[in-house]
Amino acid sequence: MKTTRGLLILATLLGAAFWLARPRESPVATSLAATGGNPLDEIIQQRGLTPDEAEAALKTFVPPGKYDDFVMITSGGHAGDIMLYGIPSMRLLKTIPVYAPDVWQGWGQGDAESAEVLKNGAFGPGLPTQTWGDLHHPQISLTNGKYDGEWIAATDKSAGRVAIISMKDFRTKSIFKIPNQNSDHHGVFTDNSEYIIVSTFFPTPFDQPNGYAPIEDYRSKYKGVVSFLRFDRQAGRIVPAESFQIELPPYFQDLSIAGRGPSDGYFFINSMNVEMATGGDLEGKPPMEIGASQREMDYLHVIDWKKAAEVAKDPTKVKVVNGMKVIALPTVVAEKLMYFVPESKSPHGVDLPPGGEYVVVSGKLDPHVSVYSVEKIKKAIAEQNFEGHDDFGIPILKYDACLEAHIQVGLGPLHSVFDDKGNGYTSCFLDSTVVKWTLGPPYNPPEKAWQAVDKVSIHYNIGHLQAPGSNTRKPWGKYVVALNKWSVDRYPPLGPLHPQNLQLIDISGPKMRLLSDTPTIGEPHNAMIIPVEMLQAWTTYPETGFDPVAMQKSPYATEQGKEAIVRKGNTVTVNGTVLRSHYTPDIVRVKEGDHVVFNWTNVETARDATHGFGLHGYNINLSIDPGATERAELVASKAGVYPYYCTEFCSALHMEFTGWLLVEPKDVARR
Amino acid sequence: MKTTRGLLILATLLGAAFWLARPRESPVATSLAATGGNPLDEIIQQRGLTPDEAEAALKTFVPPGKYDDFVMITSGGHAGDIMLYGIPSMRLLKTIPVYAPDVWQGWGQGDAESAEVLKNGAFGPGLPTQTWGDLHHPQISLTNGKYDGEWIAATDKSAGRVAIISMKDFRTKSIFKIPNQNSDHHGVFTDNSEYIIVSTFFPTPFDQPNGYAPIEDYRSKYKGVVSFLRFDRQAGRIVPAESFQIELPPYFQDLSIAGRGPSDGYFFINSMNVEMATGGDLEGKPPMEIGASQREMDYLHVIDWKKAAEVAKDPTKVKVVNGMKVIALPTVVAEKLMYFVPESKSPHGVDLPPGGEYVVVSGKLDPHVSVYSVEKIKKAIAEQNFEGHDDFGIPILKYDACLEAHIQVGLGPLHSVFDDKGNGYTSCFLDSTVVKWTLGPPYNPPEKAWQAVDKVSIHYNIGHLQAPGSNTRKPWGKYVVALNKWSVDRYPPLGPLHPQNLQLIDISGPKMRLLSDTPTIGEPHNAMIIPVEMLQAWTTYPETGFDPVAMQKSPYATEQGKEAIVRKGNTVTVNGTVLRSHYTPDIVRVKEGDHVVFNWTNVETARDATHGFGLHGYNINLSIDPGATERAELVASKAGVYPYYCTEFCSALHMEFTGWLLVEPKDVARR
Repeated sequence: MKTTRGLLILATLLGAAFWLARPRESPVATSLAATGGNPLDEIIQQRGLTPDEAEAALKTFVPPGKYDDFVMITSGGHAGDIMLYGIPSMRLLKTIPVYAPDVWQGWGQGDAESAEVLKNGAFGPGLPTQTWGDLHHPQISLTNGKYDGEWIAATDKSAGRVAIISMKDFRTKSIFKIPNQNSDHHGVFTDNSEYIIVSTFFPTPFDQPNGYAPIEDYRSKYKGVVSFLRFDRQAGRIVPAESFQIELPPYFQDLSIAGRGPSDGYFFINSMNVEMATGGDLEGKPPMEIGASQREMDYLHVIDWKKAAEVAKDPTKVKVVNGMKVIALPTVVAEKLMYFVPESKSPHGVDLPPGGEYVVVSGKLDPHVSVYSVEKIKKAIAEQNFEGHDDFGIPILKYDACLEAHIQVGLGPLHSVFDDKGNGYTSCFLDSTVVKWTLGPPYNPPEKAWQAVDKVSIHYNIGHLQAPGSNTRKPWGKYVVALNKWSVDRYPPLGPLHPQNLQLIDISGPKMRLLSDTPTIGEPHNAMIIPVEMLQAWTTYPETGFDPVAMQKSPYATEQGKEAIVRKGNTVTVNGTVLRSHYTPDIVRVKEGDHVVFNWTNVETARDATHGFGLHGYNINLSIDPGATERAELVASKAGVYPYYCTEFCSALHMEFTGWLLVEPKDVARR
Repeated sequence: MKTTRGLLILATLLGAAFWLARPRESPVATSLAATGGNPLDEIIQQRGLTPDEAEAALKTFVPPGKYDDFVMITSGGHAGDIMLYGIPSMRLLKTIPVYAPDVWQGWGQGDAESAEVLKNGAFGPGLPTQTWGDLHHPQISLTNGKYDGEWIAATDKSAGRVAIISMKDFRTKSIFKIPNQNSDHHGVFTDNSEYIIVSTFFPTPFDQPNGYAPIEDYRSKYKGVVSFLRFDRQAGRIVPAESFQIELPPYFQDLSIAGRGPSDGYFFINSMNVEMATGGDLEGKPPMEIGASQREMDYLHVIDWKKAAEVAKDPTKVKVVNGMKVIALPTVVAEKLMYFVPESKSPHGVDLPPGGEYVVVSGKLDPHVSVYSVEKIKKAIAEQNFEGHDDFGIPILKYDACLEAHIQVGLGPLHSVFDDKGNGYTSCFLDSTVVKWTLGPPYNPPEKAWQAVDKVSIHYNIGHLQAPGSNTRKPWGKYVVALNKWSVDRYPPLGPLHPQNLQLIDISGPKMRLLSDTPTIGEPHNAMIIPVEMLQAWTTYPETGFDPVAMQKSPYATEQGKEAIVRKGNTVTVNGTVLRSHYTPDIVRVKEGDHVVFNWTNVETARDATHGFGLHGYNINLSIDPGATERAELVASKAGVYPYYCTEFCSALHMEFTGWLLVEPKDVARR
């Protein structure tokens, strides 16, 4: 027994203490084999690096143990997750599962709380629970128009959903299925995160019986909405009762942004397919991409959302559809809530410089960036300077009355971002370039305004691009990241599915410089970039027995020494703890057909001491972070012996960190 | 209509041609602002890099558009996937979904073929289909003991499964659930990939009624097996009829390796828990990690597998359990198929230098690496030089008669790898070091043999380590990668779940040098590292209408121009194509309750022209690589309008790449 105790102490000490006691310096500091030359030059020569490449190496390398300067919060697209990259190293620091299960993190893999979150995001009865999403636009919550580092909101193009992620633990807290909206492309915070605003991509007949209408009735019965979802920033939840929607014509809604400064109170959405094409290529009609490109102009939607919020409070002016207050299109017209500004057809981005004075859009088949003045738009509205109305009665402002500048940037301009020095940067999909151009007053004097000043080649097919703090009141400059859709020959051949490609560009000097290429997992659609020092995340949970989803003490927490197996009828509840290197209990005896509940609390307080609960045969793997309580339920449907074990290698005796679920056959007497 | 055609041509050209036509050079080649100094020194100073760090930057940077030298094929652990990293950049090049769904790649997300593969890996009736696995040890297939770059085999610790991945497209082709074995830790190829050999980690009463026996009967009724799974390298499949198993005592089986050269025909497995402890900490017994550490020695299992393969052919010498030929323990003893060699308790790695002359093991509670001579083991067997037999009658060879050398390396030695210059490298978990030591003859003369010669600090808690071609007949040296279990404070705080940490070490000189840190996703348990020039993967599928799982022309392929929607009874089959930037068909009309089958063929031939099929509401997302045919089936369970769209951003008109699944309510007349 002495040996046993000794070993126990040894094992615990070894696991917990060794990494604390060791020196943290990087090893060996001798110089390279002294051959007389400069060791750096030798390496450069040996590796065949050009001077530019050597500079890029030194500019992007983050030494072991040091932190990157920025973290890029990037959507995973149809991987359904969020990825966090360090800048300038471009190392993938973390992924956050949101709409799709993640076995490693125990998200949606038998964990009771995450199952509940995913269920809340379902389309509704009669349809399967969604286990994927197309996460497009992660957004950091804003306070006074600047990143506050508290929450991330992320929409799902495939389903019209919004997920909320806490930046305390970078875990998903809630998924909200937006009524009347089965798609979106984008969702943004207002300047103080009062609302998350999300608009429909695909119009549908959401208020028709069965949610159905023939496609031939597209113009009359299909509609979009823009949803103003009230955000409770204490709870990290959407409040449906304080939310409302504005009905939109059946155009496709693309990107959007909420105003600030002079544009405060306005909301801008890019639209496409004002042709209201519906495809039908096997029925003798042109395919969608042709049908939707017939006209020269689409419409930038300009919405007076603060006025709309007032209108939505008047029950006589809204209808309630599927539990959501909706301002119908005729009311939108009558209350003058929305105006259109013509924009070059098939636009992508709508972006605002830091002060919110201009609205910058790009129609991808027009080689210019179009800059509208917010003052001019307001004046045109005040003067009713319309060129007409669309089929639904929405006034169309005169293009020339709103336009401030036209900047020629090249083929396929998509999106623009801004630095802290009065410059814009636009991605050109077809040219595969990033073009730098100057903003007008107050950022630059008129003689230096609205000029393309630099261009850098991109490989290949850039979609979004991003810069630290762009599209907020506080940009940081320094870097632009190009999020490229294709990589073609940039990486070794690893099968027909190619990665996408992130290219890091140094924008600190007068000329842009391409620094590095980084292949990606998923489809990194867009991103936000935040300085690393703004991150104030927990490194362990703040108290033992914490529910990571509810962000409070779990009612299912178990204290060390109070572990127990409790049977009530045919339900067996295991209130257990995990600690290097064992489960308490490590034997659980049940009978075939029993309902078994595992409540595991990780009683570790050491940073990084995450443990797993991988249960053979029952398709369950929990990841239990230090302090967390995680739960799984199952029906012991088949007799047998089912080992469980710690799936996170945690200590010298990790391999022995095991247990047994013993499911006795029904017809055998209980021992 | 002219406009329409023009646009169609424009769109196609734009998508396909622009990236081909542009210059590939990296942009701008001017030097940094000339301030008189060396621009590299200025950057080094500005970024505060030490001379070592500057060297590491230059040694690890892979310029945009250039390839890494090696690709590391790394297990994702309980993420259930495989990760591919480039060396020396340590960029994550790809992930390969295996045991868990991957929405991005359309693996297990509504795709008919992958669903079938995953189903084949199920535990069996009465238990849920597994949607996770704990992928531990990816192995590259061998020809003459060297990587041949054809197949990857990857075992699942949580389930006793083997997956086969083709290195032509880096996709999973099959998952085989091994009968009588619900766990493993490791699986390896024989020297010419005739067999994949996998041993049980957790013994179970697999041949008892209901697969159940009380844990009190552990010694008598629980058993392990080692499975010799015949590998059909043409088909990339396991052939159960030509496979067999050897019964093992109820010890935990850990890592293993097949012999070569002098050890050809032998198979070595590390075992632990020869104490046969079963835990029971809430029942007054010591927890597993204490119970399993009572004795000083565990047993290295030495199996004459070529002899066993002969024995397995004799029907009188095998029993068939759950369809698998099993050589029972008494036969193992009678036929002299297995011997034990004592080894320091709780061992991890068992490794062979390139020539196969030695067996290298480490007991993690012993500060030495133990090296056994294969010649000595063979001699001890021939002379029956036993120190006794275990409880099951297996002869235990005399420790001193087998030992060649003892090398003191430090606390917690786990695994060893080898370079091309006669050196071994051992990971020490508790010391957090990598220790370099010299092999004996024929690699080094006796006076230079078996000496620790260098040590490098690791941060933190190294598990496996890997070197190019280690544990094969052809190592390449140059790098060691440390796969570290904890990262603690190495990365910015991003919540209680920390990444693991890969550290790249330069072993090209006499002293090891730590180069870089790379955070990881999942649990990168172990890896194999192969030179990039050995990869001969497809960049598109070899013919249009290819089934990636079956690796042949799909019977469901559709030619361009032959798209059709076919109704038979209540089954609607959509034989469609995808091509920038539209689906044919882009309207599919069905009735509520219909069974709908989508067969999509990507008729693109351009590299990287992957398209998606994301269907709203029905939880389906396919990824259709150029040339591939991918399939999904659903029941149109709820009336409504369900858009579908390309989830892979592919062209300037990607946003318009959409379609409609129109599900008419049952009670409405068909239009």
